[in-house]
Amino acid sequence: MRIGILTGGGDCPGLNAVIRSVVRTAANHYGSEVIGFRDGWRGLLEDRTTPLDIGAVDGLLTRGGTTLGSARVAPGLLRDGLDRMRAVLADHDVDVLVPIGGEGTLTAAHMLSEAGVPVVGVPKTIDNDIDCTDLTFGFDTAVSIATEMIDRLHTTAESHQRVLLVEVMGRHAGWIALHAGLAAGAHLTLVPEEPFDVEEVCRLVTARFERGDSHVIGVVAEGATPKPGTMALRDGGVDEYGHRRFTGVAQQLGFELERRTGKEVRTTVLGHVQRGGTPTSFDRVLATRFGLHATIAAHEGRYGQMVALRGTDIELVPLGDAVARLKTVTPSRLAERRAFTG
Amino acid sequence: MRIGILTGGGDCPGLNAVIRSVVRTAANHYGSEVIGFRDGWRGLLEDRTTPLDIGAVDGLLTRGGTTLGSARVAPGLLRDGLDRMRAVLADHDVDVLVPIGGEGTLTAAHMLSEAGVPVVGVPKTIDNDIDCTDLTFGFDTAVSIATEMIDRLHTTAESHQRVLLVEVMGRHAGWIALHAGLAAGAHLTLVPEEPFDVEEVCRLVTARFERGDSHVIGVVAEGATPKPGTMALRDGGVDEYGHRRFTGVAQQLGFELERRTGKEVRTTVLGHVQRGGTPTSFDRVLATRFGLHATIAAHEGRYGQMVALRGTDIELVPLGDAVARLKTVTPSRLAERRAFTG
Amino acid sequence: MRIGILTGGGDCPGLNAVIRSVVRTAANHYGSEVIGFRDGWRGLLEDRTTPLDIGAVDGLLTRGGTTLGSARVAPGLLRDGLDRMRAVLADHDVDVLVPIGGEGTLTAAHMLSEAGVPVVGVPKTIDNDIDCTDLTFGFDTAVSIATEMIDRLHTTAESHQRVLLVEVMGRHAGWIALHAGLAAGAHLTLVPEEPFDVEEVCRLVTARFERGDSHVIGVVAEGATPKPGTMALRDGGVDEYGHRRFTGVAQQLGFELERRTGKEVRTTVLGHVQRGGTPTSFDRVLATRFGLHATIAAHEGRYGQMVALRGTDIELVPLGDAVARLKTVTPSRLAERRAFTG
Amino acid sequence: MRIGILTGGGDCPGLNAVIRSVVRTAANHYGSEVIGFRDGWRGLLEDRTTPLDIGAVDGLLTRGGTTLGSARVAPGLLRDGLDRMRAVLADHDVDVLVPIGGEGTLTAAHMLSEAGVPVVGVPKTIDNDIDCTDLTFGFDTAVSIATEMIDRLHTTAESHQRVLLVEVMGRHAGWIALHAGLAAGAHLTLVPEEPFDVEEVCRLVTARFERGDSHVIGVVAEGATPKPGTMALRDGGVDEYGHRRFTGVAQQLGFELERRTGKEVRTTVLGHVQRGGTPTSFDRVLATRFGLHATIAAHEGRYGQMVALRGTDIELVPLGDAVARLKTVTPSRLAERRAFTG
Repeated sequence: MRIGILTGGGDCPGLNAVIRSVVRTAANHYGSEVIGFRDGWRGLLEDRTTPLDIGAVDGLLTRGGTTLGSARVAPGLLRDGLDRMRAVLADHDVDVLVPIGGEGTLTAAHMLSEAGVPVVGVPKTIDNDIDCTDLTFGFDTAVSIATEMIDRLHTTAESHQRVLLVEVMGRHAGWIALHAGLAAGAHLTLVPEEPFDVEEVCRLVTARFERGDSHVIGVVAEGATPKPGTMALRDGGVDEYGHRRFTGVAQQLGFELERRTGKEVRTTVLGHVQRGGTPTSFDRVLATRFGLHATIAAHEGRYGQMVALRGTDIELVPLGDAVARLKTVTPSRLAERRAFTG
Repeated sequence: MRIGILTGGGDCPGLNAVIRSVVRTAANHYGSEVIGFRDGWRGLLEDRTTPLDIGAVDGLLTRGGTTLGSARVAPGLLRDGLDRMRAVLADHDVDVLVPIGGEGTLTAAHMLSEAGVPVVGVPKTIDNDIDCTDLTFGFDTAVSIATEMIDRLHTTAESHQRVLLVEVMGRHAGWIALHAGLAAGAHLTLVPEEPFDVEEVCRLVTARFERGDSHVIGVVAEGATPKPGTMALRDGGVDEYGHRRFTGVAQQLGFELERRTGKEVRTTVLGHVQRGGTPTSFDRVLATRFGLHATIAAHEGRYGQMVALRGTDIELVPLGDAVARLKTVTPSRLAERRAFTG
Repeated sequence: MRIGILTGGGDCPGLNAVIRSVVRTAANHYGSEVIGFRDGWRGLLEDRTTPLDIGAVDGLLTRGGTTLGSARVAPGLLRDGLDRMRAVLADHDVDVLVPIGGEGTLTAAHMLSEAGVPVVGVPKTIDNDIDCTDLTFGFDTAVSIATEMIDRLHTTAESHQRVLLVEVMGRHAGWIALHAGLAAGAHLTLVPEEPFDVEEVCRLVTARFERGDSHVIGVVAEGATPKPGTMALRDGGVDEYGHRRFTGVAQQLGFELERRTGKEVRTTVLGHVQRGGTPTSFDRVLATRFGLHATIAAHEGRYGQMVALRGTDIELVPLGDAVARLKTVTPSRLAERRAFTG
Repeated sequence: MRIGILTGGGDCPGLNAVIRSVVRTAANHYGSEVIGFRDGWRGLLEDRTTPLDIGAVDGLLTRGGTTLGSARVAPGLLRDGLDRMRAVLADHDVDVLVPIGGEGTLTAAHMLSEAGVPVVGVPKTIDNDIDCTDLTFGFDTAVSIATEMIDRLHTTAESHQRVLLVEVMGRHAGWIALHAGLAAGAHLTLVPEEPFDVEEVCRLVTARFERGDSHVIGVVAEGATPKPGTMALRDGGVDEYGHRRFTGVAQQLGFELERRTGKEVRTTVLGHVQRGGTPTSFDRVLATRFGLHATIAAHEGRYGQMVALRGTDIELVPLGDAVARLKTVTPSRLAERRAFTG
C-alpha cells in the first residue's frame, strides 16, 4: 500500500512525531510506502512531493514544526482543485491520504472523502478546539510553555506590586487560558466563551490589593471579549505602512484597568513561542499513537474517519462529526475556575 | 463543615496542589475549614495536626512533595487503631476525611469507610497503576522527567556507539516505561507485564548495529523480569553493613547483553528524581481538579468514593472498586510498542 | 555588626539569592544581624523595614524577584533625602548598607558613600551593562530564556518559510542580543552599539531565501536603531487612552522588511519573561558569591566598593569606577557575529 | 587552507557547537575547508574521515554529543602512530589539526605539536579541571542538570524527613559538586580536594534534625574520599559475571550515616545524564567562541596553543602549560562553602 501524507494549517509541536509514526508503522508493520506532499494542500494541488522512508524520519520525534512545510489554501481553491488532486494522487499510486491538520484541513479532508477519495484524518490544534476527541497534540505543549512563562511573571509582579496580564492563544476557545490559568495559579482567567465585565475585573483587582496581596496575574485568551456596554474594544486604525494598528484585548483591558484602578498594569503577549519547539512527552506519546492508529485504519480500509483520543483509547470517529462544530469550554469547566479566582 | 486531610505513601508531584485546592475550595465555595494530619495515617493515629487556611497553602501549587509530610504505616496498625482514629477525628470535629494516596492509602480509606467514617479519597501514584481512573497526577511529571533524561542519553550513546539501558520506576506496572519509551524514541521497552526474552533483546541489539545504527536505548521498568529459562536475576547477597547488595534488573540485563553481544553497555538508574520537584502543568491541572471535586463530594455527602479522571471529566467511583485490582498495561497498549521497537 | 540591605531598580533573577547569602554569611560567619529596607531606597527614606534572620531567607535561593520589593525613586529625592536616610540608618543601628541594584542604585550608593555612609554595593543588571565586572547575575537567566524561546521559534519559521524577528531586552547595550543570537543560531543580530542598515538586512534576508534556506531568525535588542537615512523609527502618536502608541524597533523593522522583500515577517517581543522566575544555576552561584563577599567586605570595613566578578574571582572595585560609564559591547565582540551572520 | 578536526574523550555538550563554529568560520571568513576525523585519534590513525561543509553542520549548535564520534586510545598507540598520523594528515592536505578534548586529548595534541605538527587545541571537560582557562564548555550544562535534579530531590527529602546524598561527576576535581551544591542549596558538599571526616558529617546531620530542620541534602563528588581513619571505602569484590561490584563513595557514606545517626538515608547517582543533551546557552556561546578563535589562530599560524577563556576574552595559551597540571578547587573557593554548610 502507498500512503500520502500532508500537514495543513499553523505550526504545532507533534506534527513531525505523527509523520515519523506513520512512516515507521507503514514500513515496520505493513511493508507499505509513504509519500509526503509539501506545504499542505498546496503540495497536492501542485504535485510537489518528497519520499518518506525510515531514514527520512530519523530524529523527527523531538523536533517541533513540520518537515513537510505547511501553507494555508483558500477553501475555494480546494473545491475547484478536486480533480487535479485526484489525478496527482493517482499519478503517485497513493491508496489513502492522511491529512494532519485543524478544522480547515479536516473540513477539506471531509470534502475529499465525500468525493470518494480514501482519507484518514489526524486532528491537530494548539487550541484544543476540535470536537470528538478529548485532546489533540500540541495543546499540552502550548499550556506547558504558557504556564512556565506565567510562573516567571509571578515574581516580577510580586516584586513591583503590579497587575500582569498575559495574552495566550485561543481565538474561539479558551482551553489554553483555562488550563494555563489553573496550572499557574492565575487570579483571573478570561475566555471567549464568557464575555467579561470590566467592572468586575476592576473589583477583583482592587479587592486583592486591599486584602494586602502583592500582585494580580490575569490570563486572557486572545479571543476574550468584554460584555457589551462595559468596555468597547477599539480599532487602532491604520498606520503609515498601511498595517492595521493592532492592540490585543489584553493590552486594551490593561489600559482600562490602569485608568480605573490606578494600579500599575503590564501586558505580555506570548505569541508564537506557544506553538514551536520540541513537544512535551505527553504530546509525543499522543502524536505517536495518532500516527500509529491512522496507519492501521488506512490499512483496514476505515476511510472517512479521524483518529481521536477517548479516555485512554485511540478510536475512530467520522470526519463529518468532528468538523460539525468547534469544541468550546463547557459551563461546568468554566465553573471550575471559581475557587481559584481572586 | 470541617474537612480533615492527609497524604500517604511516597512523595509525588501534585500532592501540595491537591491540598491547596481542597483548602481554597472549602474556604471560597463553602466557607468550610480544613485541618491537616501530619505524616499520613500516623498523624491521625498520634493526633498530630496542623491548621490549613488560605494563607497556609500560598505558593503550594508549584511545589513538589507534601507540606503535610508522609510516612508508611503497617496495615495491622491501622486496623487496630480504628477506634483511636475515630476519636481523634471527633476531637477535631472533622466531618469528612480526605486521604490522598496510592493503593495502600486508598485501601485504608476503604476500610475506614466500611467502618462508617465519612471518607472521600484522592488517588495518587507516580506509577499510574490505580484502577478506575484514566490517569493520576504525578505520572505525567515522572514520564516527562524520564523522557528529558533519555533525550540527554541519546547523544552520549550515539557519540560512543553504546547500548544505554535506563531503569525507570514501575514495580508492578510498566506505564512509565511505556510512555517514556514512546516519548523518547527508545528502541526497546521492557515492562513487568511481559517477561522479556534475553536472547531476543540480544538479537535486537545486534541487528541494530549490523544495520549501521549508531546506538541502542532501552527503557527498563524496575519490575521487568526475564522469561524463565532465559536469564536468572541474581541475588547479590549481603554486604559488610548487612545491606542486601542490590543490583537492579537493568544492570543485570546490561551485564548479560555485554557478555553475549560484545557491545559496550551502560546503565542509568533514574531513581528519586522521577518523583520530586515542581509538577508539570498537566499534573497541576489534574491535582487541582481532583482537590476541587473531592471537596464538592465531601460537601454533598458522597462518601466512600474516590475522585477519578474519565475522559475529560472528574467523576466519582466507589473506593472498593478502585482498590480491587492494580491497573497494569493492557495487551493492546503493549502492542503499540511494536512499530517503534528495534 | 548590623547590615542594612535593599534592592533597587527592576526585577532580576538572583536578587533573593543575594539577600539569602548576605543573611547566612552574616549570621553563620560573623554572628551579625541583617535588616531589610522595603521597596528600594523608598523603604530607607520612609523607614519601612523588615527583619531578616535565617528563617526569613529559607527557600529564597531558587525564587525569582525580590522578597524586599523594589521601586524606582527620582535621583533628586535621594539627594534631598540624604539626612533622612542617615537618620533612619542610625535609628536602626545599621553599620553598613548593602544596596543591590543597577546603574541607578549604584550611583545613589556612590553618592551616599561620598557623603560618608559606609556602603558596599552589589551590581545587578539583566542587561550586563555595569562596568568593572565581567558579568552580573540575572544576565545568564535572561539569555537562557531568550535562547529557549528562539529555539522554539526556529521550527515555526521553518515550517512557514518566514522571517522571525525577536525583540530582546537591552536599551543601551546589546549583550543579551549578542549572546542569545550566538546561542540560538540567529542569522542576524542587531544591537544598539552598531546602527543597522536596513538595506543590508534586506539583502541578507533575500540572499538566504535565494540560497534555498527555509527561514530567517533575527534577534533585535530593544535599543537597536537604524543608520540615519536608511529607515526612520516612527512615533506612533497617542491613542484614545492618552497612551503613546508604542511600536518597538523590531516590529517597525519587520514592516519595512515585509514591504521591501515581499517575505512574510513576524515579530515576537519577549518582554518581562526575560527577567522573572527561578535563576539558572550560574546566576545562583554568582549571586551567592556576591552576597558572601559583600558581607565579608562589610565586616572588613572596605566601604565605597562594589563586588565584581573578575575571571573566576570575586574582587572589590571602587563604586565610583563602576558607575563612571556603561559597559557596552566592544568592537571585537561585535566582530564575532560575522561568521554566524547570514 | 585545510583544517582537520577531531573530538576525543568522553561525550560533552558543546562539542558539536565547536565543530559547527570551526566549519562556519573557516568557510565564511577564510574560504577554507574542514575535514573531520572519526572517533577521535583513532580516525586519524586509521584514516577514517568525513567532509565537513556548511550543510553538514546545520542544526549542530543545539545538539549534544559529537557528530564525529569519539573513542579513547591508549597513549602508547598514539606515540607509536606518530608517523602514521603525519602521513594521513599529508594525504588529506591538512594544514592544521584542531583536536577538541580533555586532558588526554590535549596531551596528545601537545606531543604532536612538539613533533612539528601544526596544532591548535580546544579544551573540553565536563569536570572543569583543565588548567589555564577560566571555564570549559560542558561544565555549565552539567552543573545546570545536577542543580535541576537536586532541586527535585529537596521536596522528596522534605516530605520524608530524609538525608539524600547525590553523587555527581568529578573524579579529581570537585567543581561540579561545589557549584551544584551552592546553586541547589545543599547542606553539605564533599569534594576530592578535601577528605571528609565521617564523624563531622554525622554531627552535621544530627544537628540539623535536632534543630527541627526537615531534611539534609548532600552533594558528593564521585572522587571524594574519607579522611584516613574515619571510614574505609570498601571494595565490593567481584560478582558472578566477573564485574567488580561497585558501590560509589556516596552510597557507602550513606550506609555509614544511616548506621551511625539512625536517620533514613537515600543515595542518587546522577551518572551519564550530566554529560548529554543540548548545551545551555552559556556553553553554546563559549563553544562557538572557542571554535571561532581556534580557527582564527589556525589561519594566523599560532600553533602549539590552546584557546582559553580569561575573564571575558578568548586568549591563546601554550598547550604545554595547559596540560602541566590539573585545575582543582582552590582553598579560597572551598572556604566559600562554609556559610552554606549545615
